[in-house]
Amino acid sequence: MIPSKLNELGAWQAAALLARRELRAADLVRACLDRVAERDGEVHAFAHIDPDTALAQARSLDAGPLRGPLHGLPLGVKDLFDTADLPTGYGSPIYAGYRPVADAAAVALCREAGALVLGKTVTTEFAYFHPGLTRNPHDLMHTPGGSSSGSAAAVADRMLPLALGTQTAGSIIRPAAYCGVVGYKPSWGRVPRAGVKSLSETLDTVGGFGRSVRDAALLGSVLIGDARLREEFAAGALRIGLCRTPEWPQADADTQHAWAEATAALAPHAVAMSDVVLPDDLPDLVALQKAVMAFEMSRALSHERLHHRDRLSPRLRALLDDGIAIPGAEHAAGLARTEAAKRRIDALFDQFDVLLAPSATGEAPVGLGATGDPLFCRSWTLLGLPCVHLPFARGSHGLPVGLQLVGRWGEDHRLLANAQWVHERLTR
Amino acid sequence: MIPSKLNELGAWQAAALLARRELRAADLVRACLDRVAERDGEVHAFAHIDPDTALAQARSLDAGPLRGPLHGLPLGVKDLFDTADLPTGYGSPIYAGYRPVADAAAVALCREAGALVLGKTVTTEFAYFHPGLTRNPHDLMHTPGGSSSGSAAAVADRMLPLALGTQTAGSIIRPAAYCGVVGYKPSWGRVPRAGVKSLSETLDTVGGFGRSVRDAALLGSVLIGDARLREEFAAGALRIGLCRTPEWPQADADTQHAWAEATAALAPHAVAMSDVVLPDDLPDLVALQKAVMAFEMSRALSHERLHHRDRLSPRLRALLDDGIAIPGAEHAAGLARTEAAKRRIDALFDQFDVLLAPSATGEAPVGLGATGDPLFCRSWTLLGLPCVHLPFARGSHGLPVGLQLVGRWGEDHRLLANAQWVHERLTR
Repeated sequence: MIPSKLNELGAWQAAALLARRELRAADLVRACLDRVAERDGEVHAFAHIDPDTALAQARSLDAGPLRGPLHGLPLGVKDLFDTADLPTGYGSPIYAGYRPVADAAAVALCREAGALVLGKTVTTEFAYFHPGLTRNPHDLMHTPGGSSSGSAAAVADRMLPLALGTQTAGSIIRPAAYCGVVGYKPSWGRVPRAGVKSLSETLDTVGGFGRSVRDAALLGSVLIGDARLREEFAAGALRIGLCRTPEWPQADADTQHAWAEATAALAPHAVAMSDVVLPDDLPDLVALQKAVMAFEMSRALSHERLHHRDRLSPRLRALLDDGIAIPGAEHAAGLARTEAAKRRIDALFDQFDVLLAPSATGEAPVGLGATGDPLFCRSWTLLGLPCVHLPFARGSHGLPVGLQLVGRWGEDHRLLANAQWVHERLTR
Repeated sequence: MIPSKLNELGAWQAAALLARRELRAADLVRACLDRVAERDGEVHAFAHIDPDTALAQARSLDAGPLRGPLHGLPLGVKDLFDTADLPTGYGSPIYAGYRPVADAAAVALCREAGALVLGKTVTTEFAYFHPGLTRNPHDLMHTPGGSSSGSAAAVADRMLPLALGTQTAGSIIRPAAYCGVVGYKPSWGRVPRAGVKSLSETLDTVGGFGRSVRDAALLGSVLIGDARLREEFAAGALRIGLCRTPEWPQADADTQHAWAEATAALAPHAVAMSDVVLPDDLPDLVALQKAVMAFEMSRALSHERLHHRDRLSPRLRALLDDGIAIPGAEHAAGLARTEAAKRRIDALFDQFDVLLAPSATGEAPVGLGATGDPLFCRSWTLLGLPCVHLPFARGSHGLPVGLQLVGRWGEDHRLLANAQWVHERLTR
């Protein structure tokens, strides 16, 4: 049975209907566009949307052969990804109206799998902290998080089922948490970044959003090119490591409450569940991530730093100034410490199948001048580990709250199967 | 004293004269342009050169304050790097005449340090195997190697002192070997790749060429942002690991002869020198590199694969077809085996300061339809280790032959100091 509000269909369900030709992509797109028309004047999830092009793509897909696992699904593309048929602004006035000559590789892969790009979603300035116009669909006075602000908000608000994002500090997991959707940051190195505005050589990671683990995994399977993400969803009873992280004192009452709720719900089902003891000699990974990011951003954005300084936000300008002053020897030592930490943390996964960890300090903060703190994401991004945010609770202001699961590097298919298992038990 | 042929000045020497204002950048550029005019009709090192722009840049540098360690040095930029003021073709007809909106980060960093871009140098098609027009300056009937063909040839032929390249399989070390110059491939992850056409997420590495180790290190110091590469050249007596690699049977008599010559020359000076015993359970790194590269290139070049198939060379098309058919599970297992191999090889550097290894199977092969075999570079690129090619001999056809030194990941400053020490002893 097809629900009356097509825009509320999840990706997995819509894909099945589309594959059986029981649903037309054009109808799905029309429902999504109606929702955008109804809501986006307030939410501002989109930086650019072209209804005619989207509908034309949908009709073409309806008339042609099945393309692949995303056939007919409307996709939001963070405006940090190049698109050949839509302007690409990277969230910066420097690139207003810029028309790339080619699609980013991740966009091309999704199109090859049958997705149609509904529009470009708002990013913060170069995916750093200076916010775009997007508001949190659950409460317009609150930030949606960043930097993948528009993608998270559009998926949360049922404007479309799937959207692309990137994470350098916490830019997928944090907005997923604030908007109450599933966010998936793959293992580092698994998704091509060609055609994505580059910020940080060793941190930038392409991923995406859906409203369920299976939906995010469907998108992820195309991004990392691994069919196991959509075919293998059997997870045994798990050994769950509880990793509050050294930043736990900064988790507020809402996150603490979600933590208590989750651990209580999972305890009867897990084969084993215990606190993770982090190695004593582990460096301060949050500080390390900040330094690596500053050094690398100051270099990756050299053209903008040198030629468009006056069109950078003060906060970005300050970061680039800080980063360019970091001595190379210090950066090299930081990368070496990161590698050593990766090896230590990898060993934890002999003991645990997944780690449960906070996603954010709490609910989406009030105000649109900032996008919240990526504190609880920085370490996992530095370590390159795959992460999935699971929404399952509400905070004291009624806004979404959840937690993230962290998996072993390279074992994304296991993480997503495990995340599905965990999410089921948290949302019963 | 300034030599009469300014184009023959090494980067280090020219930089010192320029910094003392004893040499004008305009004069240096003019000498380089004269050499280009004299030779490039035969060598074809340049894809694009704009003498007026280069001279204008030089005059501006002469008139202004000292910019940095590359002040006034003419730089060749592989046509795989975006440049805002020169067309960028990536060696493919698809991008003929393309004008990027921004400089690649590496180009911007060199300009910030005072370099002036003399022109764009020829790359093979998307830095894969389909050759450009470049010929080997030592014998025009032989390949210069690829994919950084024009950069290596231009530096070898004294058209300029420094040039940028990239390596995904063997695209810096091989042309350096064939053209008889120093090629430096930094540790993976140290140089920003923003604005460089992306082929392979986990392999692509930005580096460069010079005619001496110190020259290459000077350029490298700016690329990786580590002043130690130009300030620390003291190397103690070394523990040298002799790593013929499992591919040694494919080294021809010229490479074998160079090996014997080098080991004999180094034996009296090294603190220790012995054959490296590779772990028994090491996977076939060459086969692994080929598979990782095929998988990743088929995805990074998705836009071209899907929209410009008929304008790809047959060999590249075949690679992309092979790569897209590799199951994601196989790729994930390959990346995991690579990580394990990295850890095993890293441990070798507790025992050795550097590894000596072949750079190429022999001299530059005759013929311009192919660019030679990156066989002896694939493993080191896969492992992400820093490499320096050292030219010091001639083969049976009188063409350059040499060997490479491989260092510990992240210790590029030590590798370059050690390479300087080794090169001195090989070229006495």
